[in-house]
Parts: sequence; structure tokens; C-alpha cells
Amino acid sequence: MVQKPVNPDLLVKPGDNLGIIGGGQLGRMLALEAKRLGIKTLIYTEQEDCPAAAVADKLIVGPYCDATLLDEFSRDCAVITYEFENIPVAMADYLAMRTEMRPGYDILAVTQDRLSEKSFLNALSIPTADFSAVSFEGDVKHFMDESKKPVMLKTRSMGYDGKGQVAIESAKNATMAYYDIKEVPAIVEEKIDFVQEFSIIGVRNAHGEFVHYVPVDNVHKDGVLHTSTIPSGLPAEVTNKAIKYTKQIVEALQYIGVIAVEFFVTKDGNIYANEIAPRVHNSGHWTLDGCYVSQFEQHIRAICGWTLGSMDYHSNAVMHNLLGSEVDNWQEYADKPNAQLHIYGKSEVRKGRKMGHVTELYPRAG
Amino acid sequence: MVQKPVNPDLLVKPGDNLGIIGGGQLGRMLALEAKRLGIKTLIYTEQEDCPAAAVADKLIVGPYCDATLLDEFSRDCAVITYEFENIPVAMADYLAMRTEMRPGYDILAVTQDRLSEKSFLNALSIPTADFSAVSFEGDVKHFMDESKKPVMLKTRSMGYDGKGQVAIESAKNATMAYYDIKEVPAIVEEKIDFVQEFSIIGVRNAHGEFVHYVPVDNVHKDGVLHTSTIPSGLPAEVTNKAIKYTKQIVEALQYIGVIAVEFFVTKDGNIYANEIAPRVHNSGHWTLDGCYVSQFEQHIRAICGWTLGSMDYHSNAVMHNLLGSEVDNWQEYADKPNAQLHIYGKSEVRKGRKMGHVTELYPRAG
Repeated sequence: MVQKPVNPDLLVKPGDNLGIIGGGQLGRMLALEAKRLGIKTLIYTEQEDCPAAAVADKLIVGPYCDATLLDEFSRDCAVITYEFENIPVAMADYLAMRTEMRPGYDILAVTQDRLSEKSFLNALSIPTADFSAVSFEGDVKHFMDESKKPVMLKTRSMGYDGKGQVAIESAKNATMAYYDIKEVPAIVEEKIDFVQEFSIIGVRNAHGEFVHYVPVDNVHKDGVLHTSTIPSGLPAEVTNKAIKYTKQIVEALQYIGVIAVEFFVTKDGNIYANEIAPRVHNSGHWTLDGCYVSQFEQHIRAICGWTLGSMDYHSNAVMHNLLGSEVDNWQEYADKPNAQLHIYGKSEVRKGRKMGHVTELYPRAG
Repeated sequence: MVQKPVNPDLLVKPGDNLGIIGGGQLGRMLALEAKRLGIKTLIYTEQEDCPAAAVADKLIVGPYCDATLLDEFSRDCAVITYEFENIPVAMADYLAMRTEMRPGYDILAVTQDRLSEKSFLNALSIPTADFSAVSFEGDVKHFMDESKKPVMLKTRSMGYDGKGQVAIESAKNATMAYYDIKEVPAIVEEKIDFVQEFSIIGVRNAHGEFVHYVPVDNVHKDGVLHTSTIPSGLPAEVTNKAIKYTKQIVEALQYIGVIAVEFFVTKDGNIYANEIAPRVHNSGHWTLDGCYVSQFEQHIRAICGWTLGSMDYHSNAVMHNLLGSEVDNWQEYADKPNAQLHIYGKSEVRKGRKMGHVTELYPRAG
């Protein structure tokens, strides 16, 4: 595919249009921060009734591969970004030829396929769980016979928030697990026996500058992020490796924008990269309230050609996702001292759906 | 006039509609904070191309006294507030009978007229500059002959940001000054020889709870706020009096919402109330970035029946208004460390017009 070459001098000014593909809560929070900075947002979404609809300066609603709409979108935008990595390749391809897309196309190719993602990480000598490609059921059994450990079976594409994943404890359950993921191309990987999960959220601009926030401790429940805590309590020798790996990733791809990399830590202090998110990330939501400059603003600064802002934090924080009907308890969260409530305006409450989040702040010194 | 009685149990929930009269930057920032909290906003404005337009869930554009539009607005809103105090009495009257309006009607009657405002303050034994009503030119001269000090001549209504005010150094300029303000009903007051200006921003809810932010040091240029600095550097014995006065004001009027009161301090430490703003205030913009809970959120919390949030601040701050073409230097401000840029999206840059603001944060301990 052919991408418009990176223009390191691109400057998107207040009053100019920023294009965002996707209308979920990440698009919404990006648009809200853009608005504060005076930048207008065009949101391209398949769903009219989406969280970002009410904050977009212009909403383009239609299928992701409608050439007329894509032409209109690319014509009107000074730069284009996306709030999720599973956008159709054809769409990214079409847009990236016409308007600068940041982050670029390369990272999508890497992160849309778990096999390419793990291979890419290993090529950079970044440790991951041992894995193998799965084309048919026998591949799973073969891997399990070799490793003799519990494994995770994961679809190669369209996975997020624990979707398209299933844990297998013993080889005799391999058939059922492969059936569970609908027999699509997959990877099988050893289940890491971790003691803690954390993420590094960093940002790189078109001039190659890379900076990062303080590492974030993450707790997942049922594959979905439950709580992020800052500071993470992890020793610097552990997190420094993760920061180095994150820098390697963005440099290998000449990445522009905010990136999140999730890691596992084992009890002996080894770390394993688990997933790359080429976008603002749920574990960075606390930056809206705990930092001088949020991940959303940093992403906008990076892709718009502004100077990167401070990555420092003024307060310790605990961010908790409001999933499904938990949002009905909004008042309980609003009543907590120093709590900042974020409700995404989704019309339908569904079990496990991210409806909002709340960040509780604490003095950094305390 | 008849106002709908205050319902202390009114609770406006995420998903409900908050009505805001006025579409300027204050309405815009109120709507942005409401959006984060999941509350929808309906903005009633005379101008379609206004700063709040791009952030409203629904925009009602029309003359302020159109009964059909007012009916639609009041029907759709769970509570109504305003971003400026000079809304027509007939409009406030019409709406307040139909939907709860917070702050209530009483404060408008007080603050729309400088004569009532000063008289109200004095009735509460809150010191102000000595003043007198002006119905014709002779009133100005008479006051000056008595006081023998420089004075300010101010129109009774529609004054803000130094508009409708003129300083008079000697009685021989009284005629010209009265002509300057177009010979409308006015007040004449002694010019206070102050060493510092500051404001108290507080909030009161329907249950009578009153809390306030740390006092703010303000510097005006040409009648327009130039810089707000936190902390103010003023001794507690000075600011405590101001806090007590602010509390008296909100209690006298059973006020609900955020209020700002501006004070002068003389070199002997006496304070004089200068102006009451029955709304979020320019000298409180720093709270968006320096506090756990901003003045915009506190106003929403108070008028929507939520628990009031923390008034504590996590960072020291300097807020600077971007007036007129200063906004063209946005990049210089964005480049400052720990600076938060707020651009209001006004289409036309005019001399002295508030186009945005920037808040620089500093560690509180430092």
C-alpha cells in the first residue's frame, strides 16, 4: 500500500479540522480535548447514536468503505487519526493516500493481527509469551503437548477487551476451545503466570521525540480493565525495561501519536509484552485528571505537529471503569471526595459495556 | 414576579437536559463539563455562530423573548441556568415560572442594576465605595463637590468588562463623562485607591451548604481581567472578611450555584465589595486545571442537586486571558511547560475580545 509521506512540518492549528475514525468513548474524549484547544473534529462512524456524536463539529455516518464519504472526510481534514485499530485495511489504505494519517498505516498492519504483533515484538527482541500460529485444531494440541502448560487460544484478528480469547487448561479441551473461537485463524500462547499487569503510555512526535507517563498498574476482570492505579509500586528496574521496549516499538515504526503497551510481570521480575494499542488507552484515562496534560491532548499535540506537553502528574490516582449497570451508581462515585466522573453518554446499558469511568485523586506527597 | 418554588430534592441525572441561557465561552465551558458528567445541554442563544454551539446537544437560536422558543426550552429542560446576568427580565420571568431556574430570579434583580447591587450590599453592612444615584448631570457634580475625590461614573445596567464606565478626575469633566455614557441612568462612586483586587468564588446548594475556593488575585487592564494568580498572597484576616461577606450574600438570597464577588483591598487592609457575578466567573477559569473539581462542575453539581465536590486545589496557577489577536500566539502558550490552553472557537477576532485563556500550573509545595 502507498501512504502519503510523513510531513514533519505539518501544523494543524486551532480552527482546523482533525478527523477521527470511530465514535466511541475514546473518540469522544479526544474530541472534547480538541475542542478545548480550539481544534474542530470530524468524526467518521458507522453509528449515528455514538458517544462522540454529541461532541463532534461534524459527524459523517456511513459504512467504513464508502468512497464518497471517505473523499468528503479526507478532503475536509488536515490530519486523520483513529480511536481503534480494527478499522478496515481498505479504509485506512484509501485515506492514508489522500490525507496524512497519524499514527501511520504500518502499526495497523502489525496490531490488527496477533500473529504479526507477537512476531514484530520478538523481531525487536522484546519478550512475549511463547506462541504458535493455529490454522487447524491439531496446531493447538501440538503446542500444548510441547509446552505442557496452560495456554490461551486467541483469534488473530478483531480481539479487544478479552474478546476472541479462551483459556485452555489441558489438551483435552483444545477441540472445544477451537470451536469456541469459531475455528478462525488464531494463535496459541503459553499463559504467563504473572503477579502484576502494567502499561506504559508514551507519545512520539514527527521529529522523533519520545516521552512517557509514569507506569500504570492495571487489574483486569473477565478480560476487561477494572482498575488502574498510579503509582504502580513497581521497581524502576522492571518499568525501565518496559519503557525501553515501548521506545523501540515506536522507533521501529516511526510512530506518531500516543501508544500504549501492556506488560505482564512474573514473580522473578521478568516482563512480557502482551499487547500494543496504537491509540489512546483505557489505562491512560487517569491522565485527564491526574496530569498536567492528558493522553488525549498529547495525542492531539503529536499528530497536529505541536510541541509535546509535560508528562508529569500532579496527583496520585485510581481509575475505575463503570461497566454495565455500575453506571447507575453514578451518585455514589460523584459523592467521593476528589473524584472525577466521566460518563460516555451511551444510550444502551449492556452487561460489561464501558459506560463511563471515575478517577479518584490523592495528593502525590501523601 | 412569580417563581416556581425551590425544590430542594430536585435531582438532574446523567442523560437529563440542562438548559443554559447564553452561548459564550462560559456556556461553552459549562456544557463541556456537563458533557463529561453525562448531562445533556440545551443552549438558548441569539447567535447561531457562538462558542457554545459546537458543544451543545441542542441549540435554540432566536430572540430571547420568543414565547414559542421559550416554551420549547423550558419543556425540554430539567433545570435552567444562565451564563450571564443581563438576560431580559421578561425572559427570566417567563422561564422561572415554568422550570426551576438556578440561581433564582432575585439575584438577577440585584445584579442587573448597579444601584440595587450597591444598595443590597450596604443593607448587609458589606462595605462598598461611597456612591450615589445619577439621574441627570447635576447629580455627578453634586457628588464630586461633596466627596472631593476622583470618581467613577457607571451606567446602572448592562455593564461588564469595564463597559459603561468612565473615570472622572475633576468635576469640570462631569458633563463630558455623562455624555460619554449616553446620559442613561447611572451611579457615581468614589474611586477606591486599592493596592490589590481579588475575588471569592463560592458555591451554595439547595440545602444551604456553602463552600469556596481559595481567594484569587486579579489584575485588570482597561477594565478587563488580565491575569488571575493563585495563591493570592493576601493575609487570611483580609480574605476571611471577604468569604464571610460572600456567604452573607448567598444566604440573603437563598442563592443556588456558583457566585463570584470581586473585592478591592486598600493599603490599610480594608476591603470593599465591587461587583457580584451570579455565575461562573473568569477569575475561576484556573479551577478547570488547578483544582480537583472546577467551578463549572461545582455549578452543575449545585444546580443539579448533586453533592458539592472538593474545593481544594492541587496546583498553584496563573491564568492569563487571550484577548483579541493575542490568540494568534497560541503556539507560544502551548509551548510553556504545564500550560493548559483553552480556545473558545470564536470566528471573529476583535480587539480586546476574550478569545481564550491559558493556565500555567506550578506545584503547590514549590
